[in-house]
Amino acid sequence: MIIVMKPSTSKERIEEIKVKLSGRGIKVNLWQGDKYCVLGLLGDTSAINPSQIGADEDVDKVLHVQEPYKKANRLFHPEGTKIQVRDRIIGDTKLAVMAGPCSVESEEQLIGIAEKIKESGAGFLRGGAFKPRTSPYSFQGMRERGLEILKAAREKTGLPIVTEIMSPKLVERFVEDVDIIQVGARNMQNFDLLKELGKTKKPILLKRGLSATIEEFLMSAEYIMSEGNDNVILCERGIRTFETYTRNTLDLSAVPVIKKLSHLPIIIDPSHAGGMWWLVEPLAKAAVAVGADGLMIEVHNDPVNAKSDGAQSLKPEKFDSLMNSLRVVAQAVDKEI
Amino acid sequence: MIIVMKPSTSKERIEEIKVKLSGRGIKVNLWQGDKYCVLGLLGDTSAINPSQIGADEDVDKVLHVQEPYKKANRLFHPEGTKIQVRDRIIGDTKLAVMAGPCSVESEEQLIGIAEKIKESGAGFLRGGAFKPRTSPYSFQGMRERGLEILKAAREKTGLPIVTEIMSPKLVERFVEDVDIIQVGARNMQNFDLLKELGKTKKPILLKRGLSATIEEFLMSAEYIMSEGNDNVILCERGIRTFETYTRNTLDLSAVPVIKKLSHLPIIIDPSHAGGMWWLVEPLAKAAVAVGADGLMIEVHNDPVNAKSDGAQSLKPEKFDSLMNSLRVVAQAVDKEI
Amino acid sequence: MIIVMKPSTSKERIEEIKVKLSGRGIKVNLWQGDKYCVLGLLGDTSAINPSQIGADEDVDKVLHVQEPYKKANRLFHPEGTKIQVRDRIIGDTKLAVMAGPCSVESEEQLIGIAEKIKESGAGFLRGGAFKPRTSPYSFQGMRERGLEILKAAREKTGLPIVTEIMSPKLVERFVEDVDIIQVGARNMQNFDLLKELGKTKKPILLKRGLSATIEEFLMSAEYIMSEGNDNVILCERGIRTFETYTRNTLDLSAVPVIKKLSHLPIIIDPSHAGGMWWLVEPLAKAAVAVGADGLMIEVHNDPVNAKSDGAQSLKPEKFDSLMNSLRVVAQAVDKEI
Amino acid sequence: MIIVMKPSTSKERIEEIKVKLSGRGIKVNLWQGDKYCVLGLLGDTSAINPSQIGADEDVDKVLHVQEPYKKANRLFHPEGTKIQVRDRIIGDTKLAVMAGPCSVESEEQLIGIAEKIKESGAGFLRGGAFKPRTSPYSFQGMRERGLEILKAAREKTGLPIVTEIMSPKLVERFVEDVDIIQVGARNMQNFDLLKELGKTKKPILLKRGLSATIEEFLMSAEYIMSEGNDNVILCERGIRTFETYTRNTLDLSAVPVIKKLSHLPIIIDPSHAGGMWWLVEPLAKAAVAVGADGLMIEVHNDPVNAKSDGAQSLKPEKFDSLMNSLRVVAQAVDKEI
Repeated sequence: MIIVMKPSTSKERIEEIKVKLSGRGIKVNLWQGDKYCVLGLLGDTSAINPSQIGADEDVDKVLHVQEPYKKANRLFHPEGTKIQVRDRIIGDTKLAVMAGPCSVESEEQLIGIAEKIKESGAGFLRGGAFKPRTSPYSFQGMRERGLEILKAAREKTGLPIVTEIMSPKLVERFVEDVDIIQVGARNMQNFDLLKELGKTKKPILLKRGLSATIEEFLMSAEYIMSEGNDNVILCERGIRTFETYTRNTLDLSAVPVIKKLSHLPIIIDPSHAGGMWWLVEPLAKAAVAVGADGLMIEVHNDPVNAKSDGAQSLKPEKFDSLMNSLRVVAQAVDKEI
Repeated sequence: MIIVMKPSTSKERIEEIKVKLSGRGIKVNLWQGDKYCVLGLLGDTSAINPSQIGADEDVDKVLHVQEPYKKANRLFHPEGTKIQVRDRIIGDTKLAVMAGPCSVESEEQLIGIAEKIKESGAGFLRGGAFKPRTSPYSFQGMRERGLEILKAAREKTGLPIVTEIMSPKLVERFVEDVDIIQVGARNMQNFDLLKELGKTKKPILLKRGLSATIEEFLMSAEYIMSEGNDNVILCERGIRTFETYTRNTLDLSAVPVIKKLSHLPIIIDPSHAGGMWWLVEPLAKAAVAVGADGLMIEVHNDPVNAKSDGAQSLKPEKFDSLMNSLRVVAQAVDKEI
Repeated sequence: MIIVMKPSTSKERIEEIKVKLSGRGIKVNLWQGDKYCVLGLLGDTSAINPSQIGADEDVDKVLHVQEPYKKANRLFHPEGTKIQVRDRIIGDTKLAVMAGPCSVESEEQLIGIAEKIKESGAGFLRGGAFKPRTSPYSFQGMRERGLEILKAAREKTGLPIVTEIMSPKLVERFVEDVDIIQVGARNMQNFDLLKELGKTKKPILLKRGLSATIEEFLMSAEYIMSEGNDNVILCERGIRTFETYTRNTLDLSAVPVIKKLSHLPIIIDPSHAGGMWWLVEPLAKAAVAVGADGLMIEVHNDPVNAKSDGAQSLKPEKFDSLMNSLRVVAQAVDKEI
Repeated sequence: MIIVMKPSTSKERIEEIKVKLSGRGIKVNLWQGDKYCVLGLLGDTSAINPSQIGADEDVDKVLHVQEPYKKANRLFHPEGTKIQVRDRIIGDTKLAVMAGPCSVESEEQLIGIAEKIKESGAGFLRGGAFKPRTSPYSFQGMRERGLEILKAAREKTGLPIVTEIMSPKLVERFVEDVDIIQVGARNMQNFDLLKELGKTKKPILLKRGLSATIEEFLMSAEYIMSEGNDNVILCERGIRTFETYTRNTLDLSAVPVIKKLSHLPIIIDPSHAGGMWWLVEPLAKAAVAVGADGLMIEVHNDPVNAKSDGAQSLKPEKFDSLMNSLRVVAQAVDKEI
């Protein structure tokens, strides 16, 4: 941590601050320039509160040298993390493809879709039982009944299931029922939920908040990991920008950046990012080419009658032909699907 | 709702869509232009899912005519809402001033501050017991003990208390203990929490999310109201922009816009918006001038040792002089403090 | 400037970099931590190119201690700058109010408006002759003829005139004809234009770019000043955010921030910021309360027939009553109008 | 265009508006709902000024049905445009790769780089002679001398040259000297410059502004095309988001969106988008996979001594190996390099 003092600060004040910080086990170096005086803090500064420092009227600004996340940091964990989900591995050369409808709507619907996507080569079944909707008047999901249907579809196809949790009250139930627990973009900073999930050992699929920076995203992973659960899979699903034509803007540079900063696997959700079915194919190809560890894709047997997100869902046949073209791109970057 | 069809759509397809929508009680008007064909939907379109419509390959775009919120809409409730909190009223010509430390740190600290702000004219005591922090390694609040201290301070000063809730598990406890339950910016779209709060009758202070639009903000209020709780106080606390010098960017235009669109009272939090104590005074004056119904201001007896947000906290003396200058501005716009 | 080296960097490499920088007259301090090694640069680092430093594969990041602007920096010029425009002063306790139509449309229109706003107390006449429009098919302004009409209105009323320049080809003509040359938001980083204006002595009204940070805004002022023209008036006119209900989002915190960082005067344009006439009054009051040095307000005799920006223009009677209410707010903050 | 009237509007007022618009050759349809009354305008509404309509106090909002660009619109020009530059074609299955240093620094440097990139398979030489820099104290380019050096490099290698123009004063000179004239992101809405370039027949490489929407981007292309020059190549080079780790955020979804909305070719600049050399390879691969018509890549023989943008420049050897991996990805999507 670097503290820049105001030009007018007296030597006595600077000495005072040095003494105070030294008392907390921090070594303080001092550089006296013409216009500014700079304090460099060495040691474990994670307990130092930058806002407390900044409250000092003689402090001009506080700069950070070290990333605030530790368990998620590749610096302390150079190997990429591989996460085992039943008999599959996420974070390896074989891409994890999670597909399925936005919302679970009926047993027949879900099993039908699950069988189709399995044939096309998907490795995981996704489907929403509890739905976070902007409007209280929109369909809120089949809730507990939806979980039962997901389990039935897993029973039938052998595909591990991924679904979103919205309340800390349901953590136990989800741990029991599902294979990967998804935390949605709107709950990325629902810290109480993250902490409770951190106390389990279940793989967590953490979606990036709509306007979260990569550092904030990794700090949310850190919340889960700090409680003891290292099984975090990150998911970029589009960020909010000024563009209104697409639902969100897919940030594919997040993939190589997160690969550099963190050891956690990262997958891409092109369906939510674009918000329109015809954008899924080009964005999925780009996601594979940029180095993502997997994809999450919405597939629906009857998009125009889907209870949510129909506009961005692929029909099973389109999903099948998408998988075929992705295989070729994956090969070109030494991955497989 | 307006549906713009693609230029190539056949008459049969358009007829099909008309029939389908009519079956749901919607009257459909058709305008056939040169390049586009437009369907205008009349009736209660709130049950129509725009994403389902957009999933149709012949649909070019879907435009909204009506706001998606009803209970929060001034159109259906022309009078401004006044919310009673103990013996005070929020939403009237007398501004609601909520002041206190970011975090409750000790009984002595909180009562000391509460007495000072009361003397200066504040009407409510704020203080965080459960703290949403970006880092799991930062101070997380005194939690249940913090609630006890808040109650002791209310006992001593008579000031109603405002504090933030983070988990639906604690709703009952908060309803019992506090006067206004705050929902933080990061939980603005924690829909499960909003629904549970909607089942109470307690006044809810709903903070705007960091990158929420005003429509999304009002939809979150609608979540609470749709469950039966009309006591929602909105709070603008700065939105995220590209500016990095300030913590966030205070959006004061939200005040007249929300006054136009909704009947709910709206207050301003200049402390979080600016992130620096010297910004509080000019922003608070502007908030009063623009027509806000109140202010939420961080006051700390010893900012450089505050456990959170020290940099943006005023000392009690500064708060006192701020209140004096605000009184003059309030008068200039026919309000009082 | 602070350079953070990667943990793996060898001592030899660090020594090499120190020697290279020392050769450019920079004193380099070295702090060796556990995980990072930090170089602190003292001296005039403005000639050091951070991108060049960052190109070194051993460099992790480059942090800035000093602001990159000098002539616009209050640190080197503690007194606020007052700018003389004919017999008026901008940057003093008397607020500068610039009013008039978005576009000059005819001599009759402009003189009519000019007389009205003068009666209401405006100090300057604004009006666009060259119009930057998003669409090439929109009205592009009366151009040279518009300048003639502006001069006629000045002749008639004595009000100094403000109008926007779009091309470096017209600098001489504008210097001759107008009192304050406006640079529009879209040209804030039209560096060739800024340099040419820097070679004149004419007061320049520089509008903030739609997504410019305050530092970038001040760097654009620096462009003008670095060529020798210190007469720069800044103007905040709303920044782009995710909000779509308003045209832009007025950033009033820019006023106290710029007052802290720079000595240049800053005025507010509430008309462009909000984009709707009914937002002008509350935003103008807030602008006065927050400490702005002036206002720029669109006034049109017949908004529904205005050739541009009618929706945000006030009729002369509304402008008159606005001026009356602003006078009261100005008094409350020890200013006058 | 759709006009939504306020619920309270009288029938007389609506009739008045209908008559006024009909007088301009627009057919007006009326839908009377419960809460709103909606006017649908059919015919050529491009001459209708939405702000003028919105200035009417009875108007609630104005919605757009049709895109405001015509010449750039794929609707009126279904075939993709191919642009001939000397003996090459941009917009075909063979990708256009433009490479070279950020700034032209010397003849030796430029010719050295040009020869290398040609060997690696680049089709065009880029290099900045006039440099738009945020700071007036940064290197501003070799200017006219830079153009001479570019010509010498073309002479030597046969590669067509691309370089940026900053002032309308230089249009003639650029038309004479270079093969593709680049308009930088900061000048995307420098309308006077766009118009002057529209009067030539020279291919224009138009970069997307840092916070421009796709519609605004296409409207800037429309400015050039409306003056008669159809040879516009679009270039996405990263937009501004809240992410601070990367320089900008590359918006790859812009490629399929622009392919849908417009017939103009679009290329990607991964160097400026990421701002760091190690991001160029994954982003370039993704750009090819998503369907871009070409790439613009910064290559420098000695990045740590580059006068600008060293951190994001590849050394010639890295560029060579990048080209090899791009060839494989291109094949996977039926393109070639």
